[in-house]
This record gives sequence, structure tokens and C-alpha cells, in this order.
Amino acid sequence: MRPPINLPKSLMLGLMLGMGLAMVLALSAAAAQTISAIQPFTASQAIDLTQPMHDDMVFWPGGVPFKKERLVDYDTGGYQLHKFIMGENTGTHVDAPSHFIRGNKPIDQLALNQLILPIVVLDAQYAVAKNDDYELTPADIKNWEAKHGKVPANSLFVMNTGWHKRFDDPQKYINMDGDNVMRFPGFSAAAAKLLVARDVAGIGIDTLSLDHGPSKTFAAHVVMLAANKYQVENMALLDALPTTGATAIIGVLPVRGGSQAQARIFALVP
Amino acid sequence: MRPPINLPKSLMLGLMLGMGLAMVLALSAAAAQTISAIQPFTASQAIDLTQPMHDDMVFWPGGVPFKKERLVDYDTGGYQLHKFIMGENTGTHVDAPSHFIRGNKPIDQLALNQLILPIVVLDAQYAVAKNDDYELTPADIKNWEAKHGKVPANSLFVMNTGWHKRFDDPQKYINMDGDNVMRFPGFSAAAAKLLVARDVAGIGIDTLSLDHGPSKTFAAHVVMLAANKYQVENMALLDALPTTGATAIIGVLPVRGGSQAQARIFALVP
Repeated sequence: MRPPINLPKSLMLGLMLGMGLAMVLALSAAAAQTISAIQPFTASQAIDLTQPMHDDMVFWPGGVPFKKERLVDYDTGGYQLHKFIMGENTGTHVDAPSHFIRGNKPIDQLALNQLILPIVVLDAQYAVAKNDDYELTPADIKNWEAKHGKVPANSLFVMNTGWHKRFDDPQKYINMDGDNVMRFPGFSAAAAKLLVARDVAGIGIDTLSLDHGPSKTFAAHVVMLAANKYQVENMALLDALPTTGATAIIGVLPVRGGSQAQARIFALVP
Repeated sequence: MRPPINLPKSLMLGLMLGMGLAMVLALSAAAAQTISAIQPFTASQAIDLTQPMHDDMVFWPGGVPFKKERLVDYDTGGYQLHKFIMGENTGTHVDAPSHFIRGNKPIDQLALNQLILPIVVLDAQYAVAKNDDYELTPADIKNWEAKHGKVPANSLFVMNTGWHKRFDDPQKYINMDGDNVMRFPGFSAAAAKLLVARDVAGIGIDTLSLDHGPSKTFAAHVVMLAANKYQVENMALLDALPTTGATAIIGVLPVRGGSQAQARIFALVP
């Protein structure tokens, strides 16, 4: 730095300090765009909470299935190349707030501290064993809190229904009854409201939908997405997840304006 | 446990111990399938190394672009729903060893400790500034090692060409010259061989391809993929990545038998 003209020393010092401060602020602004603070954690083990993707994978009835189309193969081109076609809600995926609510956040606008965050799980298999389309209640969550502490703010709260073990059997996973009603478990709207009050970043489940199979109003969806929270569906391996203490990495595809998108999801364990 | 008949006490004890051991072994086998050891790390900051995905996103000339098709909108259905169509190599993605080598690992078979791993970066912008299609040399890597230590085994070694800053300008990113030859930087085959000797898990770059634009033999691809290593292309924000000390999370879609797939990639910084 070379001041253009002779200035009193005190003024020069002020000028230098001012320019230094401006540089620091400029650097901070640049860093803020690219480096985000997340809740600190340690990790030495990983669990893959993602279902494998393939052409026979279960999908929402009437929706767009996953398809892998071969474009080039070793014999013809010397290498392999495919094309993917999929509904944005096929397989393990995240619902953005914009899925239901116009003007709310699309999938590419979820912040890094919402995608890398503490994950906690409630094992609801005891209730689901007695009722295929069981809806999680506020009492279930409060019972869980009595044992494991309050559901942390900015965490991912996951319901383990045990349904992830049916994922490879589309018929058992959709579980349509004689009246063409799907019978799988989910969150009640009241449970969703309690979790919004706890200020979670999102909720997750190992079924086709956050709302239980018979739902026609998708009331839990509406509660969560209106509150700008996100939802993860078709999660895998929830049986392996510790109740508390793990960190989730939600590797959702950053599709500009997407209302949902596929995600690779890991749980990291200290 | 209830032995079916009366047995001498020593035999019963042996039986019980044997069954206990069998149970422990069975549990270990189950755990091995679901929980994987990774190289321990700590994190308090995150960087998103993924380019946003949208219909105007640059793609390999002649390839299949990314397309988001709207199926349902708020006015007509009360919610939003899209369908995605994409070449498996569109946007930030991972090449599996099976991309070039029949019988080598497809994208869904990469182990968790290959997808969650130390990431190191070499800033090659000084060389690229003088030569658009510069090829990284073994000498460049050895100079880097003289300053930062040996490239760690089972790490992701990334070349920052500065090209990520051109991603939103497809013409400048592809950089086709008057003879229809693409001019962007990459790894030389010799550099790839040195990195295989260092036993990295994979290499990455912020251009369309690991091999530089003019390549017709894709020699660096062949070296890496034949060694069952993977490759990451079209990475974002490499300027923000610390040279060493960060951990990469490669959230690649687990497409069964895919030879490449899209990935959300984060770098986590202590």
C-alpha cells in the first residue's frame, strides 16, 4: 500500500487500519458464500441410509419409476455409458418445502447446516407390529424424550417403522389392501406439529411417504413443508442407526428449482 | 436357551459357550454389512463441491443433457412434481471403474471408506494460466509432496485447474478451438500412474474430464479405472478447499450397475 500523497501519520494509520478492515470484511463475505459453519462432530464409522437404485425399485403407484438405459457398451464403444430417467421422488429422496408450498425453499436452497446435522431415531416397530398403518403420536415422541432428552433443534428426526426391510418387495412395501388403500405407517399431523415446535430441520421415514398409506390430505406433509422443513422418504437400514449421537449427511442432488430430489444419505457415528 | 436333554455340566457349558460365540460372530457379520469403519475425523465447517443442476448446465458434447420436466404444478395438482432425465455423466459425477473396464466395480460397489475419506488438492492454476490444456505431471505432484507431505493412501487427490469458475459459461468451459478440439486441462497418464502408486482411492477435477480436452485415448482414465480407482468430474469451488486436512463426503447415487452417477459432494473442515 502506497498512499498517493504525503499525509499526517495519524491519518495514514487510520487509512491503513480502514483498508485492512475493508479487506477482512471482503474476505469474510467471500468465505461466507463458500464455507459454512456446521454443528461440530467427530466420526469413525458410517452407515449407508440409502436404498440401492435400479429398474425394479418400488415407486409411488402411478408415478415415474427409475430407469437406467444403456447408451454405449464395451463391445460397441469400448466403454459403458447410461442414461437415467426418474421421478424426482423415486427411491431415497428429499422433499423440499416447495414440493407443497409455492414460494417456499426448493431442494437446491437447503443450507449446508440443514444437510449436515444431528440425526436421532425413534423405533416405532413395536406399534407398527400391531397396526400396519400406525400414525406416530405426540405421546410417542414425548415418551422418547423422557428416555433420550428433548428432540434437538436443527436435527433430523427419523421414524424407524421397520418398513425398510420390505423395500426389495414392492408389493409388501406398498401393501395395498382389498380396497386399493395403501397400508403403511407414518407421522400424524399432531406429531409433525410437535416436531416443528422442537424446530427440527427435517423428518425422515423408511416408507414411501411421511404420511401413512391411507392419507388423502397429506396433513403431516403440509405441516412440515409450510414450516420450511424438509422430509426424507424411503430411508434404508434404520435398524443400524444409534438412537442419538450420530450425524447425518444428506447428499441430495442440488437440482435448481427441484421440489424433491434423490439423495445419498450417510449416518456418521463417533 | 434350554438344552433339549440332560447333559453333563461340562458339555452343557461347552455348548453354551459355543452358542454364545456363534451369536457374537453372527452379530459381527450383520454389523459388518451395515456399519463400516472410516478414517476418523472431526468437522465444524463444510464446503459444497457440487455444481448446481439445471437444464442449461454444460454437458459433454454429443452427450445427454440434464432435463427437469414438470409433471404437476400448484395450480393443477396442488403441489409440484418433476421428472429428471440425464446422462449418467452430466454435472458433478463419479466415474466407476466399470465405466471403462468390464468386470471392474460399478458405481454402487464403492465402499463407504472410499466415499468418506481425506481430500487433498493441488492448485494447478499457475500452469493452466499459461496453457489451457495443461497436463499435470509427476513432477507437479512431487513438488506438491515436498511442501505438503506424501499424497495419503486412500485419499481423494484433486486437481484445481480453476475451470470451476467457467462452469456457468458452457462455451468457455468446453473451450472448443477452431479445429473442434476441446482445450481444457487434465491429468497426464504418468501423473495418474504415480497416484495409483500412492494408492489413492480416487482423483478429481473441476473440468469435464480427468484427461485433458484434446485426449483421444483417455489414458489417465484407463490407468485409474483399470486399477479400480474412481474419478470425480465437474467439481465446484475447489478454490475454497484447504490443501490438506479436509474430509470429502462423496454422496454418489448408488445406481446398481451404473458406470457413472451424479453425486452431491461436501468437503468437511475441522
